[in-house]
Amino acid sequence: MSFVLTKDLLDKVEKAVDTKNSQFVENELSLLRPADISTVLNEMDTEQAMFVMDLLTVETAAEIISYLDEDVCIPFIRNYPSETIAQWINYIDSDDAADILNELPLQTREEIIAFLDSKEKADYIIDLLHYEEDCAGGLMAKELISANINWTVIQAIDEIRRQAEKVEKIYSLYVVDNQERLLGRVSLKKIILSNDETRIADIYEQGIVAVKTYQDEDEVAEIMRKYDLAAVPVINERGKLMGRITIDDAVDVITEQAEEERQIITGISEDIEEDDNVLMLTRARLPWLIIGMAGGLMGARFIGLFEKDLAILPAMAFFIPLITATGGNVGIQSSSIVLQSLANKSMIGVNYFQRLFKVLIVAIINGVVISVIVFGFTIILGQTVNLAGIVAISLFFVVLLASFMGTITPLVLDKLGINPALAAGPFITTANDLLGLAVYFSTAHMLYSF
Amino acid sequence: MSFVLTKDLLDKVEKAVDTKNSQFVENELSLLRPADISTVLNEMDTEQAMFVMDLLTVETAAEIISYLDEDVCIPFIRNYPSETIAQWINYIDSDDAADILNELPLQTREEIIAFLDSKEKADYIIDLLHYEEDCAGGLMAKELISANINWTVIQAIDEIRRQAEKVEKIYSLYVVDNQERLLGRVSLKKIILSNDETRIADIYEQGIVAVKTYQDEDEVAEIMRKYDLAAVPVINERGKLMGRITIDDAVDVITEQAEEERQIITGISEDIEEDDNVLMLTRARLPWLIIGMAGGLMGARFIGLFEKDLAILPAMAFFIPLITATGGNVGIQSSSIVLQSLANKSMIGVNYFQRLFKVLIVAIINGVVISVIVFGFTIILGQTVNLAGIVAISLFFVVLLASFMGTITPLVLDKLGINPALAAGPFITTANDLLGLAVYFSTAHMLYSF
Repeated sequence: MSFVLTKDLLDKVEKAVDTKNSQFVENELSLLRPADISTVLNEMDTEQAMFVMDLLTVETAAEIISYLDEDVCIPFIRNYPSETIAQWINYIDSDDAADILNELPLQTREEIIAFLDSKEKADYIIDLLHYEEDCAGGLMAKELISANINWTVIQAIDEIRRQAEKVEKIYSLYVVDNQERLLGRVSLKKIILSNDETRIADIYEQGIVAVKTYQDEDEVAEIMRKYDLAAVPVINERGKLMGRITIDDAVDVITEQAEEERQIITGISEDIEEDDNVLMLTRARLPWLIIGMAGGLMGARFIGLFEKDLAILPAMAFFIPLITATGGNVGIQSSSIVLQSLANKSMIGVNYFQRLFKVLIVAIINGVVISVIVFGFTIILGQTVNLAGIVAISLFFVVLLASFMGTITPLVLDKLGINPALAAGPFITTANDLLGLAVYFSTAHMLYSF
Repeated sequence: MSFVLTKDLLDKVEKAVDTKNSQFVENELSLLRPADISTVLNEMDTEQAMFVMDLLTVETAAEIISYLDEDVCIPFIRNYPSETIAQWINYIDSDDAADILNELPLQTREEIIAFLDSKEKADYIIDLLHYEEDCAGGLMAKELISANINWTVIQAIDEIRRQAEKVEKIYSLYVVDNQERLLGRVSLKKIILSNDETRIADIYEQGIVAVKTYQDEDEVAEIMRKYDLAAVPVINERGKLMGRITIDDAVDVITEQAEEERQIITGISEDIEEDDNVLMLTRARLPWLIIGMAGGLMGARFIGLFEKDLAILPAMAFFIPLITATGGNVGIQSSSIVLQSLANKSMIGVNYFQRLFKVLIVAIINGVVISVIVFGFTIILGQTVNLAGIVAISLFFVVLLASFMGTITPLVLDKLGINPALAAGPFITTANDLLGLAVYFSTAHMLYSF
């Protein structure tokens, strides 16, 4: 039953759009879900997409808008007058609506709010615009159903009826006191299974998990994941119920986090996709390439200092890639393991000293294994025992130092409030290249001075 | 309201456990949620954890078991007789129960199933054990509420009452025909707002998203993410309703995917954590280090072929790290961008040729920028125009080739059914090191032959 957009279908629809064959487009789209239609629109140019939108009901169009990628959505809707945008916003949940309005110019934003059908929706959005996008307040929707602790079940059902159209997904009712402070929740299941006259006070669940408006979105996602929650209430500092975050928003946070981490680790400095234009792709890639290049030039300068040693023992040059590559690999592995601990917040009861001690042991084992193998192969490659010794000894220390740096760097970045994933990317590779060269050439220089 | 385990609390509880101070431990734990108690147990040794489990009710203990990490849970519960495990399994949802039983020896498994209180639960588990763990069938739980299309609302409510204890989270009822084939769903909201005598046939929602038992877990997670679903029904090839997957399981899939991808990219070959033992950590890291080392040795052998060129122009050695590092960085960036497209399945309407053409343009721009800068700096570093030319020209071709390889490799791996993330890890770095050396030394050799 799931839908995957094919090039074939897209071509058919695009051709129909270009020939203004409304009937055909309507027929094709009627078979699709709104989330699928937004995938189609994502691939179309503005004119085509506007033609398609005109064929849809306001409600469907609104849902499609809420599914569009933000970088497609904002430029697209700016083709429409504020009044049309307001008609869509009427149907969009307050959290998504606030996200969209946040990206529009102040004047457009105020016009749209003025055009909204319901004063309540306008107030919701104005309230949400106060919060930073990456905290619980920026993630929550105002649409939720709350029940006063003094109500009976039938009163709660009346409230559900009143709000039914406004709140699409209801998993439970949040129970509040007269000051709107969150006390707990009642599941819809319990409402169905209770008598009309049962008091909410007698059936509600206390001590539920809630998040504060100012909590970071990563923390919210982690809490929802940990406690397996489909929705979590958001309260302010005084315990007042302010909104509700549903799991789909947390899933988006988790997905974006993972994507961002991969981009950082692989040396991409902006959020890009393969179908972005050449300029954006280049701009996202050049910064790290240039840093890597700067590292490479420093390396060249550094090796230059040992020109005389190289003249005496030119075969030393053969092993430069081995030294730098090993340093890079070991450093990245070490950072990655620390990153994982930081993400899981699971390293309780392990202090820095114990941590580094363990890193040291693992590094010694890896270092010995690699050094011994390399020593053997270097001799097999026809080099002298002398050179094989230099390579093996430096490799051992490179593994040790790279492990140490790879472990320390993410911990330090994290303490400084910088994204520790930076430590598993080109930065650590570049640093380790230089470190490796330093170890290699100093070792050679010292051993040859004897 | 959220709980983060502190070293302080853990120490207090561990001390109380060691002195068998049951009263204190019970008091502390009574303040925690089951998910939090499992975090505590995760940090304890077996004897301590067993002492804690004895203090809890069977129901709480069962919930804790279902929250434990699998690699902690299985060795831990094997300390208990099958009868005790069965008592816990009585309270654990069939999907988690099957995951646990899957890891136990056949005999224990059958003993546990025989000890279960309910025949229905036993049948559920036996059914689930048939599915691979990483498909929809392996993810789903059998606990769900279905309503026959011919029922009225009051009959559906009776069914909810009958199943209430068994099915903890109910978002909607799945509507089926007399052959148990899935037709659609009714939300609990609708049940609450409808009259008792309303026919399910008149209020149910058709054409809902469902997944097939054999669909891959990544696909299931992507579908739930795309359509913002809190739960998705699972059907077999003939459309029969087989189970239900809730979003918390999809979230686990997404988190594990991201973690696995990071491990692959950073050259870690087993699923490890920082608090695993030294042997496991070493075993997970050595394979890629050894592959990197083999690459380095091949590189050494390769450079050795150009020993004469190096003797003529020893300064060539200075730029080896620059060449290899740039190749590595460019290759990883290119793979990363393709990986993202593969993950988003968003590259519709772009064929291989267009893709490579764009890659080529970006590579040319990056290559030119870097080559020009490097040319300048090489001369500033005091090298000859000749050498600067060799370095700049090879760098340009290295960027081109590495972009090409970085783009092609993940696409090919994906077509072969191999995890394309492999292409953004040490494999591509190693390959690009060799590629870079080949380009550099051949360029130098050719230019000098003139």
